[in-house]
Amino acid sequence: MGRNQARRQHRAALAPGQGRQYGNSRHVAAGQCHHRQSCRRRRDAARCASGLEGRVENQRGQIEPEISVMEREMPMPQTNLPTNLPIGSGPSVRRLSRGATISYGERKIMVGGGAPVVVQSMTNTDTADAIGTAIQIKDLARAGSELVRITVNNPEAAAAVPAIREQLDKMGIDVPLVGDFHYNGHTLLNDFPECAQALSKYRINPGNVGKGAKRDTQYAQMIEAACRYDKPVRIGVNWGSLDQALLARIMDENALRSQPWLAQAVMYEALVTSAIENAQRAEELGLAADRIILSCKVSGVQDLIAVYRELARRCDYPLHLGLTEAGMGSKGIVASTAALSVLLQEGIGDTIRISLTPEPGGDRTREVIVGQEILQTMGLRKFAPMVIACPGCGRTTSTVFQDLADKIQTYLRDQMPVWKKAYPGVEGMNVAVMGCIVNGPGESKHANIGISLPGTGESPAAPVFIDGEKKLTLRGERIAEEFQAVVLDYVKSHYGQAAA
Amino acid sequence: MGRNQARRQHRAALAPGQGRQYGNSRHVAAGQCHHRQSCRRRRDAARCASGLEGRVENQRGQIEPEISVMEREMPMPQTNLPTNLPIGSGPSVRRLSRGATISYGERKIMVGGGAPVVVQSMTNTDTADAIGTAIQIKDLARAGSELVRITVNNPEAAAAVPAIREQLDKMGIDVPLVGDFHYNGHTLLNDFPECAQALSKYRINPGNVGKGAKRDTQYAQMIEAACRYDKPVRIGVNWGSLDQALLARIMDENALRSQPWLAQAVMYEALVTSAIENAQRAEELGLAADRIILSCKVSGVQDLIAVYRELARRCDYPLHLGLTEAGMGSKGIVASTAALSVLLQEGIGDTIRISLTPEPGGDRTREVIVGQEILQTMGLRKFAPMVIACPGCGRTTSTVFQDLADKIQTYLRDQMPVWKKAYPGVEGMNVAVMGCIVNGPGESKHANIGISLPGTGESPAAPVFIDGEKKLTLRGERIAEEFQAVVLDYVKSHYGQAAA
Repeated sequence: MGRNQARRQHRAALAPGQGRQYGNSRHVAAGQCHHRQSCRRRRDAARCASGLEGRVENQRGQIEPEISVMEREMPMPQTNLPTNLPIGSGPSVRRLSRGATISYGERKIMVGGGAPVVVQSMTNTDTADAIGTAIQIKDLARAGSELVRITVNNPEAAAAVPAIREQLDKMGIDVPLVGDFHYNGHTLLNDFPECAQALSKYRINPGNVGKGAKRDTQYAQMIEAACRYDKPVRIGVNWGSLDQALLARIMDENALRSQPWLAQAVMYEALVTSAIENAQRAEELGLAADRIILSCKVSGVQDLIAVYRELARRCDYPLHLGLTEAGMGSKGIVASTAALSVLLQEGIGDTIRISLTPEPGGDRTREVIVGQEILQTMGLRKFAPMVIACPGCGRTTSTVFQDLADKIQTYLRDQMPVWKKAYPGVEGMNVAVMGCIVNGPGESKHANIGISLPGTGESPAAPVFIDGEKKLTLRGERIAEEFQAVVLDYVKSHYGQAAA
Repeated sequence: MGRNQARRQHRAALAPGQGRQYGNSRHVAAGQCHHRQSCRRRRDAARCASGLEGRVENQRGQIEPEISVMEREMPMPQTNLPTNLPIGSGPSVRRLSRGATISYGERKIMVGGGAPVVVQSMTNTDTADAIGTAIQIKDLARAGSELVRITVNNPEAAAAVPAIREQLDKMGIDVPLVGDFHYNGHTLLNDFPECAQALSKYRINPGNVGKGAKRDTQYAQMIEAACRYDKPVRIGVNWGSLDQALLARIMDENALRSQPWLAQAVMYEALVTSAIENAQRAEELGLAADRIILSCKVSGVQDLIAVYRELARRCDYPLHLGLTEAGMGSKGIVASTAALSVLLQEGIGDTIRISLTPEPGGDRTREVIVGQEILQTMGLRKFAPMVIACPGCGRTTSTVFQDLADKIQTYLRDQMPVWKKAYPGVEGMNVAVMGCIVNGPGESKHANIGISLPGTGESPAAPVFIDGEKKLTLRGERIAEEFQAVVLDYVKSHYGQAAA
């Protein structure tokens, strides 16, 4: 096979979003492996070419490379030649799933089925406090939460749900509400029909629906309520409340293996099995397949990635994605983003919830904003203009620069409730605030509007770039106010009705 | 081929960390594609099995699926059967690269070559202020920055570098220093030999070394300084300061294509080409290949992923990874984490720097902590005990729970400077702080130490779990202090010398 022919053949087998071939024709000619990760290096090419050879299964049941003759001969990393194909970008093609619609009145939120990834959140008010809960739901909805979940943990909470819905109606907030049930959901849904009706979706934790003989009955009662009120459900598994009987069964099956799996793999299998078996049971009980959303939350990043890859592989229900108990401060944001970005990049995930622990006095809407920031920075959706700002260094006059970046970011966020109606498309605008000459003009040119502040010792002038061209220069004490006016002019002229 | 034989063969060709096969034996039997993403669905299996068929190249030079007969017949998503292989987890095998060592005295930091991913940072003080800069370097180093970069932007800054190094020596801080050069680096390295000597690495931006005929000479002068003082370099490309002559050349080449690439692909190609060609030029000038680290920073998440995947494919130098101009607040953390986690999960990246814009008055060490949090939450390194905390909901008495999570997280971080010496291994400890009965006991059992606080209406008792078993119950007003004492006891008994 000639080199060009091999390239064409290899290229043809690549997934969309991977529009790039390998320069290594020897590897391509082996015709064995098209996985970018595994093919990057000569060492792996040797593995691929050797087919069954060169691998052993270790005690953990994982597959490990065996050091082969080829590897010993070629220990150095390999470089590949440039090709004459453009470098592609973007996430993998989205996993195909059924779409489940959660509705309240005219408001319909589709999860899965190719719909944009939905951002949701959960209140931390006492649900029995209908007014306090309605206010927090309003705040979460205004911040952009497209579904809001509330715990329905006792009769008082269940009794308050219709009042919460009514209060929201009065405030003009039509966000669908999700009821979070544990232990007593079957009773509450039966005893409080107005609660069952006011909710737009039920979250059922199959590990918390009852034990022993009662389990199946109580689970069935909840699914029957969903059928009766025509509501979709999330079957939400969590490793902190995994069905212990199911785990015991999976462990028993494991004990029969000639090479038993490690505890971690048994846990993964139990999580995935719990979600899928309960979904199948719900279908048997009469719930339509397109009324079911699944989740399997764990608190470890690699655990979450592993479980959701398998869940995505093994079912076609839409997936609710979230790292449970992510924690507080930057750690919670980092852990959630790390786990979700890997999965979203692979096309996995139809709705997300970011489980951040608020700092004392912290704002609950933070979890909505972080969810939006994940989707927007990854290029999956657009919610609000983004500020690109350099971190500053010894070249920047730090306070001026930080103040300007802070002011413009706050200004943009504050304007959005009005702008998103008046200036459709403004949510995709990029604004750059740069601190010195090094990357300032260059980065500013890439943004819709950019300002390059003078660094220490530079001429005290701040060129402003609009759509890649230098349009004016700001000077003096009022740079922040003047730049804000420039941004507003840009928004009006580019996203206003006159612009359309 | 029998089903089991096909499975074995497929499994044998998987990359490590992907120890899982597809249940779809028809697809496996086709023997064409082992890429997990592209094989997940029947639609893709159809693509794979069809080989060259079913694909077209679009105007952007990207490969798009052509709707085939098989796709029209099978529009629904596919589910795969469970297998009898354990679900694997963890990042892909690390990209092989040469290792570059950055040293100061006895302190040696290896970047690449299989070494753990190194966390670095950059000061934002005026380098000419030697004392102020030394103090910030000390803070960054104590927070865990393993390399610290300072701008060397003028003669005053260059003159201050030896004084900064001396001041650090006095404080017992042996972190290697990296000099960041733009425009005048060739002059400063020549005119200030003590600066050139005091630095442990030079960052060269090939877009900012001069224009026209001077460019090559000035670049050569910098590389020659690196050779003379035996220092490694980072060839640090940034799209905000891309070599305009090189970009023009790549654009000219593009114009000659029968199907020219879009501007985005031309930009990617220019970034990667700039890094690699300048590295090759440095080698020609006599710098050893293992003295070169590369970076190609851009401010967009998908752009960064695309550029680094290609850089990783096309060279074997260690890679410095960072999203440039990530911005302020949670947006900067989210964007950096999203980009880096996708690449690190693919085994790409040898050292990271998180370019956060500090809020006015914000602490510069935040960028170090976020870098550590990315690596630790992904399971790549361990720096400090992690607190798993639930986000709270209507079931939790929010303030008690948030206070406890906040207190224990602060306590653990404050102890680390002492603990990391006295209690080796403590950095891998997990502490869970949970707000109610739903996932509280379960999640607490998975942690080294966990506490499950009583939710609203639950019995006012907080069981404490140690290594998965309930050991005691805390009650009353002093739960936070008592839990802290339990954690300290655990640390002493499990990580102290007596425990070894």
